[in-house]
Amino acid sequence: MTAVKTITLDGEFQMKRGSIAAPTLAFETWGELSADAGNALLIFTGLSPSAHACSSDEDPSAGWWEDMVGPGKPVDTNRYFVICVNSLGSCFGSTGPASIDPSTGQHYRLTFPVLTIEDIANAACFVLDHLGVNRLHTVIGSSMGGMTALGFALLHPERTRRLVSISSAARSMPFSIALRSLQREMIRTDPEWKNGDYDLSGNGPISGMRLARKLGMITYRSAVEWAERFGRERATDFAEADNPFGIDFEVESYLESHANRFIGTFDANCYLYLSRAMDLFDAADQGGSLSASFSKLDLDQALIIGVETDFLFPISQQEELAMALQEHVADVQFQRMPSIQGHDSFLVDMDRFRPAIAGFF
Amino acid sequence: MTAVKTITLDGEFQMKRGSIAAPTLAFETWGELSADAGNALLIFTGLSPSAHACSSDEDPSAGWWEDMVGPGKPVDTNRYFVICVNSLGSCFGSTGPASIDPSTGQHYRLTFPVLTIEDIANAACFVLDHLGVNRLHTVIGSSMGGMTALGFALLHPERTRRLVSISSAARSMPFSIALRSLQREMIRTDPEWKNGDYDLSGNGPISGMRLARKLGMITYRSAVEWAERFGRERATDFAEADNPFGIDFEVESYLESHANRFIGTFDANCYLYLSRAMDLFDAADQGGSLSASFSKLDLDQALIIGVETDFLFPISQQEELAMALQEHVADVQFQRMPSIQGHDSFLVDMDRFRPAIAGFF
Repeated sequence: MTAVKTITLDGEFQMKRGSIAAPTLAFETWGELSADAGNALLIFTGLSPSAHACSSDEDPSAGWWEDMVGPGKPVDTNRYFVICVNSLGSCFGSTGPASIDPSTGQHYRLTFPVLTIEDIANAACFVLDHLGVNRLHTVIGSSMGGMTALGFALLHPERTRRLVSISSAARSMPFSIALRSLQREMIRTDPEWKNGDYDLSGNGPISGMRLARKLGMITYRSAVEWAERFGRERATDFAEADNPFGIDFEVESYLESHANRFIGTFDANCYLYLSRAMDLFDAADQGGSLSASFSKLDLDQALIIGVETDFLFPISQQEELAMALQEHVADVQFQRMPSIQGHDSFLVDMDRFRPAIAGFF
Repeated sequence: MTAVKTITLDGEFQMKRGSIAAPTLAFETWGELSADAGNALLIFTGLSPSAHACSSDEDPSAGWWEDMVGPGKPVDTNRYFVICVNSLGSCFGSTGPASIDPSTGQHYRLTFPVLTIEDIANAACFVLDHLGVNRLHTVIGSSMGGMTALGFALLHPERTRRLVSISSAARSMPFSIALRSLQREMIRTDPEWKNGDYDLSGNGPISGMRLARKLGMITYRSAVEWAERFGRERATDFAEADNPFGIDFEVESYLESHANRFIGTFDANCYLYLSRAMDLFDAADQGGSLSASFSKLDLDQALIIGVETDFLFPISQQEELAMALQEHVADVQFQRMPSIQGHDSFLVDMDRFRPAIAGFF
């Protein structure tokens, strides 16, 4: 059983740097739209999740934000009509580089146009139109999704009253660009990538994806958490006595397990496109500076949450975003979380994040 | 012209986990040993440098610590007899995995025994014996070299009066282990590595070495420095208009340039061995805890320098080291540097590091 719905656009979808014919968008919804259609929330995801934010009768499997979204939960599906969209360019039902180009009958692969965060935001408007939602109660996004939510509020100020941005940023800075660029190079230099022409039914650039995922895991957490969690414990699984460079420490075993779960679930070309979209994002593009861009906003309220141990989306960038918003939004709340789980805290430090989100709603 | 000297040991050198026959050690010296042989300083290097710490008449090329070591400089070769050793396991004159095993006539490659920091420290004793130095004025090390200097002081307490440890640590913790483990995996999964049997006269695992070096560069600096230095500037060199995932931002161009300079100068197997030696190091191994280990020290004085923006050898580990030393060493100085250049600050923030080192001597 699946709860995923899809819509397919008529005609050409104009992207920032090109266009694609009749893309499909996958989404899930929870709860009921109120008579005045004023209770709709839209969630944009980080790079890797699907639209399955939480379980439902149609799909009882746990979603990627199961602890946050659902009946009686902080994002309360008893009160709100909650929508989560699989990003354009991803590979969980929405059109992306792994999809068939209807004009050629072949997979897009690298013929897919350069993807931008703004394209992902614009594509979601068609889902809202389809659902009869003119103006959202709130657009919510974490990590890459926070960039998309901000891009959405900038490009379509009339379509949301509130913004919640979690562990995100108004633009990518060189440290995170360097890390993502290196992840992409890991995939591109895997001979099995074959310049994007790997066998889509097979395994593709497994080695490069494994490396990229491990680097991702390292940047999603924090040194403090890992020191407490793993210390210098030795691994007992994956033991390879005859391999002088095999897995030795518990932290290496942890990375191996997580990477193994990721491989095969995410298309490599989609990963490359979404990763680069984050690098290219700069909210100042809409006006020359953040302040000029944000003058276009029409928000009543914004909540910015950042985590002190997040070095991928550092707290300084959360402050920058909150301060720039304060010039143009009456009610801007900034929450600085002392969580030790780094960038991933919004997925795991629920004791802090649940009250913060519940308090906003 | 070269200033590198070598000695070759007679017989077998016992390592922590194996032994090798008649290893060679490469070293350079500057200045004159005093009549009482009491003015000798020994410098242990980080993972990648050679013994060429600074220029000399014999080799006028700039050394890796040129601004710090030399006549009238903080490590003053007019006053001190300065020795720098190329680490055992490296590839700049000392015996390592890229050397010939005299018992087989073949290169060691992966038959080289597991290398530990303690082995590197022990091997240096033969250089001191050869030079007629019984007890050092000071043993100095930065990064991996700080681990080696500490290991040396623990294993041979009678051989040094003072310790200077810069941006190092008493043991590797899971965050840095994860990063180094991933660097090693980048090299090992490059098909050109060939399980260590790559052509030593050729290029070897260039792609893996490039990735590993780039990740190194990222971890050696800081997000703050790069934000100031690169911002979101676009690259003008390496431009590849037809490559959707080519170099786009200035920071990517910077990494590419540095990686290109590194490739071909460092042997991949040597890199793997030295990298893992750092993971395996734990000064507590000498006694069960740092405090128990450090009770074996016989130091008059120690200087520990750490950098606030260093996330590879974080300031918390510098404090841990300094505090553990204070239990057993009368005079422990701890300097906390606010440099923005991260782990590499000791190589570039000379306005802060020169006075700190000069003050100690």
